[in-house]
Amino acid sequence: MTGEVVALRVRRRQGLDVLDQTLLPGEERYIRLDDVPTLCEAITSLRVRGAPFLGIIGAYGVAIANEAARSLAALSAAAERIVATRPTAADLAWAVRGALAAAHAAPPVARADALWDFADALLASRGAADQTIADAGAGLLAPGTAVLTHCNAGALATGGIGTALGVIRVAHERGLVERCLVTETRPLLQGARLTAWELQRLEIPTTLLPDGAAASLIASGRIGAVVTGADRIAANGDSANKVGTLGLALAAGYAGVPFYVAAPSSTIDPTCAHGGDIAIEFREAGEVGGFAGVRWAPDGLDAYNPAFDVTPATLIGAIITECGVLWPPFAPAIAALPRKR
Amino acid sequence: MTGEVVALRVRRRQGLDVLDQTLLPGEERYIRLDDVPTLCEAITSLRVRGAPFLGIIGAYGVAIANEAARSLAALSAAAERIVATRPTAADLAWAVRGALAAAHAAPPVARADALWDFADALLASRGAADQTIADAGAGLLAPGTAVLTHCNAGALATGGIGTALGVIRVAHERGLVERCLVTETRPLLQGARLTAWELQRLEIPTTLLPDGAAASLIASGRIGAVVTGADRIAANGDSANKVGTLGLALAAGYAGVPFYVAAPSSTIDPTCAHGGDIAIEFREAGEVGGFAGVRWAPDGLDAYNPAFDVTPATLIGAIITECGVLWPPFAPAIAALPRKR
Repeated sequence: MTGEVVALRVRRRQGLDVLDQTLLPGEERYIRLDDVPTLCEAITSLRVRGAPFLGIIGAYGVAIANEAARSLAALSAAAERIVATRPTAADLAWAVRGALAAAHAAPPVARADALWDFADALLASRGAADQTIADAGAGLLAPGTAVLTHCNAGALATGGIGTALGVIRVAHERGLVERCLVTETRPLLQGARLTAWELQRLEIPTTLLPDGAAASLIASGRIGAVVTGADRIAANGDSANKVGTLGLALAAGYAGVPFYVAAPSSTIDPTCAHGGDIAIEFREAGEVGGFAGVRWAPDGLDAYNPAFDVTPATLIGAIITECGVLWPPFAPAIAALPRKR
Repeated sequence: MTGEVVALRVRRRQGLDVLDQTLLPGEERYIRLDDVPTLCEAITSLRVRGAPFLGIIGAYGVAIANEAARSLAALSAAAERIVATRPTAADLAWAVRGALAAAHAAPPVARADALWDFADALLASRGAADQTIADAGAGLLAPGTAVLTHCNAGALATGGIGTALGVIRVAHERGLVERCLVTETRPLLQGARLTAWELQRLEIPTTLLPDGAAASLIASGRIGAVVTGADRIAANGDSANKVGTLGLALAAGYAGVPFYVAAPSSTIDPTCAHGGDIAIEFREAGEVGGFAGVRWAPDGLDAYNPAFDVTPATLIGAIITECGVLWPPFAPAIAALPRKR
C-alpha cells in the first residue's frame, strides 16, 4: 500500500481515467471522464478536486469537449460550463481559457491534437512546478520539524507530487520533517481521507487531529511550521484556501509559528486586488451535520458552509511558487512575477 | 418537539434517571444510574457530560455510593473513582469532595439523607445560578446580535437552563439575539447533536457550521459575540473548555468581537495559578477519523485528541458567573469572589 499516487491516466482523443476521490481511502476506483457533463459532475461532486489538478482537468476537459463540439462557439460554451463548476479555483479558469486560446490559434484540422498537446504540456509543467515548489519549500524548514497541514494539497490535488504535501514529502526525504499533522478538514474530510492516505503511502509518520484541536496544538510549541495550498491568491497576497485555513494562520501568528502557502503562480489572480475581491463558493447545507449518509444533527437546520476562507497576507510568512519563494510585502513580489496570462 | 429539556430525574435513595446524551438527537432515552460503575461509565462515555452537570451527577454519585458503602473509607474510595473519570472538570471534583465533607459531618444514621439533601441542594442552587448567569450575560449583548457558541453549555450541560446557552436563551427572550450559530464540535459533535437540538426545542433560529468555518464567519463581522462555557478556570482567568474554543477566541480577538465565558464560580480553581496548571484530558484515538461506527480515515493512524484547550485570559472579554460579571484583569476579580471551598 506504499508508493506513488496516480490520480490521472490520459486516454488521448478519448478521455481521462481519474481516481474517484470521494471513495478514498476505502476504495481505489478509476472513473472515465469522456464528455463534458460527466467531467463537470466529477468536479462538482469533488471526485476530482484540488486547485492545480482542476486546472489540468479543465484543460483536458476542453480537449474532450472539442471531440464532440461542432464549432468554436460550442466549444466556448462548454468551456464556460466547466469554469462555472468551482468559482473560487483560479487555476481552473486560467487553464480552460488557455486551452480555448490554443483552440482558436490552431487550424481546424489540427485543433484536436493542439488541445490534447496543450493539456499534456500543462500536466508536465505542473509536475515540474510541484518539484520546484517542494525543493524551495523544504529549504524553509529546520531539521526535526513537525509540520501541520490542512485539507489536501498532495498528488491528488495537483497531479504531480503536490504543493504543500510536496514540500513535506521532500523535507521528509531530506530528514527535516519528522511528522506530519493533518486536520480532518470538515465537512468533506479531505485531510482525514486523502492526505492521511497519501502520507501513509509515502511512509511519513502521520497524526490526525480534529480541526478544533489545531489551535492549541500550534500554541503548544510542538509544530515547527504550518504549510497549506491555495485556491486563489490576490495581488496583495491574501490567499483563499479550504475553509479552516484562516484559523490555522491566526493560531500560527499567535504562537509565532511560520505559516506558509505553497501554490503554483497560476493560482495568483492579479484581477483580485485583495481577498475581498475573491468570490467564495458556498456549498449545500447537507454537507454539514453529517457525512456519508450518517446524520448526527437534527433535521431542518440552517447551515453555513463556505468551501473556502481568505487568509490575509499579513498572516502569511511566505508564498512558495515555482517562480521562487515570495516574501512580504507580497504586492511588489507578485507584481514582479513573469506574466503567464 | 419544543419545550424544556429534562436531563435528569432524581429517584431518592435509589438512583438517577438521566437522558443518554450519546443517543441524541436521534433518540431520547433515559438510563438508570444506580451504582458507581454504571455512573462512572456514563461519565466516561459522555452519556452525561457538561462541567456543571457533572458536579451534580458527582454529588448524587456519592449519595448512590453511600447506599452500598459499608464505611466512610469505602465511600471515599468510591468518590475518588468518580472524580478520576474526567480530570479537567473542576465542578466534578468540587462537588464530590463537598458531598464527602457532608457525609463526614452527618451522624451515621442521617448520612444517607444528608447526602441526597446535599445533592438536591446543589441541583437547586445550580438552577438558580444558571438563571443569574443568563440574566447577567444577556445584559452584555446588543439588540440584533448573532451569537456563536461551541460544544454544549445548555440544559444538558448543567441541569438548569445552561450557562452559555442560558445567556443566549434569555437574550433571545428579550429580543436581543436573532440567531445562534453553533459549531459542529468535532470529534464528538456536541454542537451538532446537543446544542442544535436544544435550540430547536427553544425555537431559537439556529445555523450549524463546521468548526473550521467559524474563524472566517467571525472575521466577516456578522457575529456580535462568542459565548462559551468553561470546564476549569485558573486564578488568572485562563479558561479550559472544549477543544476548539481557543481558535474561536483567537478569531474573535482578531475581529474585535467580544469573547465571553459563562460558568458557575465553582468552575474557578484557585489552586491553578494559570492555564499551564490545568490538566488536560486526552481521549482515545478512535474518536478521530470517524463517528458512530463510520470510519473515513485510513486504519492505523496516530491521532491527537485532547478533550479541552486553554484560552488565555488576555483573549477573554468577561467571565459571567452567578456572583456577577468579572472583567479583566481577572486575577483580582477572582481573588475577591466569595470562597465556597
